[in-house]
Amino acid sequence: MTVSAPRVVIVGGGFGGLNAALTLARHPVSVVVIDRKNHHTFQPLLYQVATAGLSPGEIAAPIRGVLRKFSNASVVLAEVTGFDLERRVVRTASGADIAYDYLVVAAGATHSYFGNDHWAPLAPGLKTIEDALEIRRRVLLAFELAEREAISTGKHAPLNFVVIGGGPTGVELAGALAEIARKSLASDFRAIDPRQTRVILVEALPRVLPTYPQDLSESARLQLEKLGVEVRLNTRVTAIEPGQVRLGETVLPAAVTLWAAGVAASPLGKMLAPTDRYGRVVVEADLSIPGYPNVFVIGDLASAKGADGKPLPGVAPVAMQQGRAVARNMVREMRGQTRQPFVYVNKGTLATIGRAAAVADFGRLHLSGFIAWLLWIFIHILYLVGFRNRVLVLIEWAWAYVTYQRSARLITGSTDLPGFDSSVTNIHK
Amino acid sequence: MTVSAPRVVIVGGGFGGLNAALTLARHPVSVVVIDRKNHHTFQPLLYQVATAGLSPGEIAAPIRGVLRKFSNASVVLAEVTGFDLERRVVRTASGADIAYDYLVVAAGATHSYFGNDHWAPLAPGLKTIEDALEIRRRVLLAFELAEREAISTGKHAPLNFVVIGGGPTGVELAGALAEIARKSLASDFRAIDPRQTRVILVEALPRVLPTYPQDLSESARLQLEKLGVEVRLNTRVTAIEPGQVRLGETVLPAAVTLWAAGVAASPLGKMLAPTDRYGRVVVEADLSIPGYPNVFVIGDLASAKGADGKPLPGVAPVAMQQGRAVARNMVREMRGQTRQPFVYVNKGTLATIGRAAAVADFGRLHLSGFIAWLLWIFIHILYLVGFRNRVLVLIEWAWAYVTYQRSARLITGSTDLPGFDSSVTNIHK
Repeated sequence: MTVSAPRVVIVGGGFGGLNAALTLARHPVSVVVIDRKNHHTFQPLLYQVATAGLSPGEIAAPIRGVLRKFSNASVVLAEVTGFDLERRVVRTASGADIAYDYLVVAAGATHSYFGNDHWAPLAPGLKTIEDALEIRRRVLLAFELAEREAISTGKHAPLNFVVIGGGPTGVELAGALAEIARKSLASDFRAIDPRQTRVILVEALPRVLPTYPQDLSESARLQLEKLGVEVRLNTRVTAIEPGQVRLGETVLPAAVTLWAAGVAASPLGKMLAPTDRYGRVVVEADLSIPGYPNVFVIGDLASAKGADGKPLPGVAPVAMQQGRAVARNMVREMRGQTRQPFVYVNKGTLATIGRAAAVADFGRLHLSGFIAWLLWIFIHILYLVGFRNRVLVLIEWAWAYVTYQRSARLITGSTDLPGFDSSVTNIHK
Repeated sequence: MTVSAPRVVIVGGGFGGLNAALTLARHPVSVVVIDRKNHHTFQPLLYQVATAGLSPGEIAAPIRGVLRKFSNASVVLAEVTGFDLERRVVRTASGADIAYDYLVVAAGATHSYFGNDHWAPLAPGLKTIEDALEIRRRVLLAFELAEREAISTGKHAPLNFVVIGGGPTGVELAGALAEIARKSLASDFRAIDPRQTRVILVEALPRVLPTYPQDLSESARLQLEKLGVEVRLNTRVTAIEPGQVRLGETVLPAAVTLWAAGVAASPLGKMLAPTDRYGRVVVEADLSIPGYPNVFVIGDLASAKGADGKPLPGVAPVAMQQGRAVARNMVREMRGQTRQPFVYVNKGTLATIGRAAAVADFGRLHLSGFIAWLLWIFIHILYLVGFRNRVLVLIEWAWAYVTYQRSARLITGSTDLPGFDSSVTNIHK
């Protein structure tokens, strides 16, 4: 380690990594952010891209654009494949090793199919911009193919959208799909009636939003049903097949199936230190890993506990606070001060359901409906990276609120849909 | 043909097809628009998506959204594979035949590599949203890979962007690339200097914009050079290889090569009637095809002549006027009136080059520079499909003009680039 400017390598440009980098930006260190994408994705709004409400460019910002003002920070587009903790280098897929003095691993999580990886192509999850575009493609294409079939034959396969998993992502997706079908697309088609679309949310536990207080779960379920979503609780998916989902004995025809049920930490965690059963690295009180005080793990990849002894949830505020905390500890250490343990300050949690529908948990204060939804919009616009995006997203939302229109209804890529048969009949008068 | 509501089938939802459909929308006919994409693409702004200035959703609109208000118009997402002119049906890839009374084929054109189709993966052209996203991916990735290489080794392969073809698309792309490198990205990188990027525009003829008057071609060349583009006239590409372009004896290293040199009409033309050497259907004075007065061909797929006897150019205004003209003739015919021959009214042509740089040809009046550019923006915003898009695009442009920023700098899809070697060296201090 040189005396002058230690190098901090940060793996991952998500909420955790970016906050660590921004906190270090004005300090006498050299910061290198490594990510396999060139952009930070504002994940809380990813479901809006998946449901054609926003364009990818409105919720993602180039990482090097975010850090451009800070000359001590550089960005490398690369896939990290491993670490040599003794030699203090990060290994990348291009073959280059990147040396560090301090390492922050904020590689996040991806979806888990609980050992059923063959379900992945049949039921995409929602973690990246590419995922969102694939979901958007399938959803819009399902309406198009049904219309084509109905024009040909006078009938069409049932337009069922099945969302598996009743956590925040599943609830957001189900609510937005119901709105698309009942409002945005209602008068766009001639041979099908999009309002006949069924959106079915399947959850294995007895309530949606299981990490929220009981009364808010119940409120969320009622708000979903008001939007037209069928909520099936205590229901376990036993198989996903082309065009259908099996729930034990029941076979549910599904034009599109979406996966929002499971999350698994990045495989990089296991290369660093012992992990919990979700693959998350069990970290020390200062978020470093056992035996390597210069290596930190934060965000969805870290298994840390709150002041109440309960595990911290995999949400953006935790990752952001952790990113800032490890950066501050590095600065303290360089100044000869001792480190401070990480303490998560819970300012409340929000989940959105649809137009004027949301729930908010501020400890003793529980909010539902329009007020929770306004709060949700306000906070998310506030945190959205980059001023320009905030303005554009506000305009998009104002426009969508007034007109019910969704502006990003583009199908790009293939026009085939798994499990959707094109009818081979003729369109005559 | 039934007496009540004849069915007009329109193949292609571009400028020609959409204008035909909109003109027929209030008349007693049934209109079916068939397109293999679900969206109309505003092609004059496609280069802005390719160069990260606009998002796809800002220049494309779902065809069925454009026609939603007109209950006599329906939209079918399908790939047309052929025609049976005797039986009056359109054949589609899904196997369905679609019957018509009147047929309008507005299937447009794609790029032609003049028999060198193996150049396609090395030098993408710009016709669709997917093309634009692929070009954007390559351009942004070239900077990323050069930065990574420079951080590893202290040097990097030359950042040359080679644009082949000096027509409007080539000029737009070259100008925008020069601006990205010199302005937008100038302070984003640490190890490379994007201002050292070379943008080389190669044109086989003695001038750029060869269909414009001589003085505007010269003005365009000067404006390009002022933006930092190297213009090579009288220069023919003899080979495109991974990472380089051959110009006779000269070998030009190329991080990214773009193709803007050749256009070929849709292969559907040859299935309808005799074509000219560009594959365009030679149409009658009323834009119908010989022997089939109920079949019209319009837009880039039609070979029609202007009042001066010269062939009409493949531009949006021609397609739009033709779309309206064939629709009006159908209405006249249904009312027992005779058809009128198509006469193109040339209101002038504009080509944009970059920030405050453009040329405009209004017959005797030739404009260059800032005024031509303002006019170009005004007209293109005016014609952009959908009110919401206009507002958003204006905001994007105002923001970009003030800050030089490009907002849609996302790399989606693969992070490999043909002909770009990843260095296998290490990043140490």
